[in-house]
Amino acid sequence: MSAQSADPRTRQLHLNLFVYPGGHHEAAWRHSVSPDPDRLLDIRFYQDLARAAELAAFDGVFFADGPALADNVRYASRFRLEPFTWLSAVAAATERIGLIATASTTYTEPYNLARLFASLDHLSGGRAGWNIVTTGAPQAARNFGLDAHPVHAERYERARDFLEAVGKLWDSWEDGALVADRRSGLFADTDRIHTVDHEGPLLKVRGPLNIPRSPQGRPVYVQAGSSEDGRAFAARYAEAVFTAHQTLRSGQEFYADIKQRAARLGRDPGKLLVLPGISPFIASTESEARRLHQEFNELTQPEYSLELLHRLLGVRLTQGELDGPVPRELIETGGERGNGSRFQLVLDIVEREQPTVRELLHRLAGARGHRVIAGTPEQVAGQLQQWYEQGAADGFNVMPPWLPGGFDVFAAQVVPILRERGLFRSEYEGGTLREHYGLARPLSRYEAARSAAAPVA
Amino acid sequence: MSAQSADPRTRQLHLNLFVYPGGHHEAAWRHSVSPDPDRLLDIRFYQDLARAAELAAFDGVFFADGPALADNVRYASRFRLEPFTWLSAVAAATERIGLIATASTTYTEPYNLARLFASLDHLSGGRAGWNIVTTGAPQAARNFGLDAHPVHAERYERARDFLEAVGKLWDSWEDGALVADRRSGLFADTDRIHTVDHEGPLLKVRGPLNIPRSPQGRPVYVQAGSSEDGRAFAARYAEAVFTAHQTLRSGQEFYADIKQRAARLGRDPGKLLVLPGISPFIASTESEARRLHQEFNELTQPEYSLELLHRLLGVRLTQGELDGPVPRELIETGGERGNGSRFQLVLDIVEREQPTVRELLHRLAGARGHRVIAGTPEQVAGQLQQWYEQGAADGFNVMPPWLPGGFDVFAAQVVPILRERGLFRSEYEGGTLREHYGLARPLSRYEAARSAAAPVA
Repeated sequence: MSAQSADPRTRQLHLNLFVYPGGHHEAAWRHSVSPDPDRLLDIRFYQDLARAAELAAFDGVFFADGPALADNVRYASRFRLEPFTWLSAVAAATERIGLIATASTTYTEPYNLARLFASLDHLSGGRAGWNIVTTGAPQAARNFGLDAHPVHAERYERARDFLEAVGKLWDSWEDGALVADRRSGLFADTDRIHTVDHEGPLLKVRGPLNIPRSPQGRPVYVQAGSSEDGRAFAARYAEAVFTAHQTLRSGQEFYADIKQRAARLGRDPGKLLVLPGISPFIASTESEARRLHQEFNELTQPEYSLELLHRLLGVRLTQGELDGPVPRELIETGGERGNGSRFQLVLDIVEREQPTVRELLHRLAGARGHRVIAGTPEQVAGQLQQWYEQGAADGFNVMPPWLPGGFDVFAAQVVPILRERGLFRSEYEGGTLREHYGLARPLSRYEAARSAAAPVA
Repeated sequence: MSAQSADPRTRQLHLNLFVYPGGHHEAAWRHSVSPDPDRLLDIRFYQDLARAAELAAFDGVFFADGPALADNVRYASRFRLEPFTWLSAVAAATERIGLIATASTTYTEPYNLARLFASLDHLSGGRAGWNIVTTGAPQAARNFGLDAHPVHAERYERARDFLEAVGKLWDSWEDGALVADRRSGLFADTDRIHTVDHEGPLLKVRGPLNIPRSPQGRPVYVQAGSSEDGRAFAARYAEAVFTAHQTLRSGQEFYADIKQRAARLGRDPGKLLVLPGISPFIASTESEARRLHQEFNELTQPEYSLELLHRLLGVRLTQGELDGPVPRELIETGGERGNGSRFQLVLDIVEREQPTVRELLHRLAGARGHRVIAGTPEQVAGQLQQWYEQGAADGFNVMPPWLPGGFDVFAAQVVPILRERGLFRSEYEGGTLREHYGLARPLSRYEAARSAAAPVA
């Protein structure tokens, strides 16, 4: 790994639990291994999951989000748990595990989002992470009074502007500006609280924020775009990248590319963690794991899956065509869709494996394009180790096909193998998500500027 | 009370604990009865407070909010705890008490706010309340890219539009639309999930919401405006009104007016609770309570207080003028300020009591214009009983001058007297805020329309 700077003797892999109501396999909620669907709106279900992940010393729990209802909610457990409320209640039930909230730069205001993250970071004692998204679902626009979803490039322009604005807000209180000196009556030293006066191409924000600087300074920046715009954005801002790859080679290419981009911008590539998604079916034999996977696939709804395929590739097919080949010539490669990394990933599967429509649908049912593997605990651990040691991953976003059981079996049977091989911690060394990820706490830019300007004594 | 519909034999008063970092008296954080100021950013401090209020069977805890930093943070504990994150973590530490979050219709988007409240209501098992504000602080505008804060009438126009939009979103999933039938594979019955297609004068929202209907249907609507626009809004939408009055007579006038307005709109006035704010200094003798209040007042900062007076009345004074009369002729009665209910309240004090500037500043230091009383537990209970029985209150927003002690003494010494007199519950009868307040759970408007349209068998 030319771009890998961490000492290989102390390097450890990182694991997040990606929580999704009902589990990541779209039909998981129908299978008898899943709990009663009533539990999917019970906060205790998620608190228990996070406690289990904390017991396994996972780096973080990760919540997806999007400000619109998914069309496929008719057949899949695809409502949304608003991440700030949900993760704040999870924070109250845990002590060490990181809390990564997905939030959109397209459909929120910088001042409001900066407050939500600063508060989550305060109340969790420094465990907040932000999965920065620009929102892919075009139907979101009409929930916000817009006639059309802004195009990809426009969304990324706003995202960059947004990051600059919220970065300044999170820095606006220097550390120690909250003086609370009872004798003098000075509560906050307003000389160390700064208006930010951000004026970007799209956003104007005056500041300062209305809450003191949080334990981590700001949330850890996580990002998931793999398009050209997404990679450029990640190389500049992200501290962890969540990414989808079907093959080791694709993972390696992405890993090398993103690390090199960061290095070219003068960043330490070791401070940009690459975390592919992995959705494991685990059983005591490989054939049993495959059988379980097959059982899940057989519970999927072709009507739902064909709709998903249409959204991904622009191809409208009927149930009569399920056992034929995927019609390569009907795939729409142009426009917004063709720019997306998920589109490319699915196109690669089609070209590499030439699956039937049904086979392709089953591939996508697992984790929406993320890698699904079925095997014994040793096989799963071996796959993770291979990606980790062969330059495709610094760790993984674990996406259990069903919850909580799909996580429990991973924690009980795969994690101990990773530990035996010296790849994963047995207990936490730090208390913040930044510490779990091996990232330094940033200094406020205003404090840094003041220090730089101060005369040397 | 002609407009009082509740049966006087079963009528009970309602009590919220209004939580404010550092307590409601602006100098409380400096007094030795207050805990170390470090605790003001510790979630456990607020969880403990809410647990204490729950032990006392209070209806709810109430969090103020505003999307800007208060100028007076230099001298007063006036940073903001973002209410949704903070209350979600409080929800996780409690079981029955209501959770009332202040949120602005001017500086949020209906879709985002609807999600936050639906999620808080889900994760708390139906305990969410919304203190609806339009945001009074003009400096907020520049945190959201606006050059000027929208004027009062414009803010209320958006507030009405906003309430219509979020009301439709909260109704968009009918009860029972989450079917989760494992056998058929139907997860959500999309025939019972509705796009709302709201097109108001200012806001367009398509919907549906991306989460099922919450335990209370929607949060309890709380509102605090007492201006003409505010009263009209409260009469139409509010289920509880938080209001500031210095005298019984002013409280009675407001109470009668708001109940009559509700009745004229065809509402049951008993379903609109009037809850004045009350900030009590309590000690075993009246003189001791007054001495404590005086100690707090002597810790205030004239520089801060004069600034507050300037914001409230438009009068700029110096410390040399503290012991002279308030210059009535310099008070600016025109414009935005003159429309505000808080302005009128302070003007009334000036005209009724003719205080010195210092005396007026001390009056305002207690709870920003809310009523401050100092006395024995019997005296405080007697005051509450008088307002409650003489048509000025259905209950109170209790604003302890300092926290947690100022609440603890109220719970330990005033609440038992209210119980002995049959005025306040000893334990909860219900589990939701709606049940504590005696309010019915609304049916989704879409479900209601469907039922109305269904043929009679």
